[in-house]
Amino acid sequence: MFDKILQINLLLDFYGQLLTDKQQNILQLYYIDDLSLMEIAEQLGISRQAVYDTMKRTEKILYDYEEKLGLLTKFVYSQDRIQEIVKISCNIEFGLTNNIFSNDEILSEINKIIKISKDILEK
Amino acid sequence: MFDKILQINLLLDFYGQLLTDKQQNILQLYYIDDLSLMEIAEQLGISRQAVYDTMKRTEKILYDYEEKLGLLTKFVYSQDRIQEIVKISCNIEFGLTNNIFSNDEILSEINKIIKISKDILEK
Repeated sequence: MFDKILQINLLLDFYGQLLTDKQQNILQLYYIDDLSLMEIAEQLGISRQAVYDTMKRTEKILYDYEEKLGLLTKFVYSQDRIQEIVKISCNIEFGLTNNIFSNDEILSEINKIIKISKDILEK
Repeated sequence: MFDKILQINLLLDFYGQLLTDKQQNILQLYYIDDLSLMEIAEQLGISRQAVYDTMKRTEKILYDYEEKLGLLTKFVYSQDRIQEIVKISCNIEFGLTNNIFSNDEILSEINKIIKISKDILEK
């Protein structure tokens, strides 16, 4: 669904505040600032192995939070559905501006927006 | 914004999985099943004071999670905005069905939906 860098970035957005400063820092240096394990080790004055171990342990903590709470999954679902609403709305806008839709066609598109909105609200 | 029972219910929905079974159980018995402290104490075979202490401690854990992650706040914001989309869509539906809106009026309503959707996506 995502590549790992994007996934860890999103997990950090959601659950980062539950990590220690050190855990957040190492993941940020690796996944956001794109430093190598060796560069992080030098910057923090610890061994490459310690960086690696902390990173793997922290990733597992993030995945465990997601497994328990599933917020990222819900967020992605909701964002996808709202993107659909934007697409349908832009379609209606285009149709109205160019006078190519009948009232019934617009009505059908509006009903799609209502349905998607209710899906999100009931999720 | 909410009364406390609704607030704790929502916090349990979001963060309940991060609590121990015992913590979840006591909050559920009190806030969802509406038992008194004494009834919970009898049911679990512990003192009324122990129930009370665990409940207060657990509520604080939930509030702390919300302070760190703010998911309930984001959720309520997003739900409120999607309710607005439903309201505007139903308004357009009514206008179209009764032929009381000009194209420009519908266009203006559609643009509101696009703006709200983009607000949610960018939040």
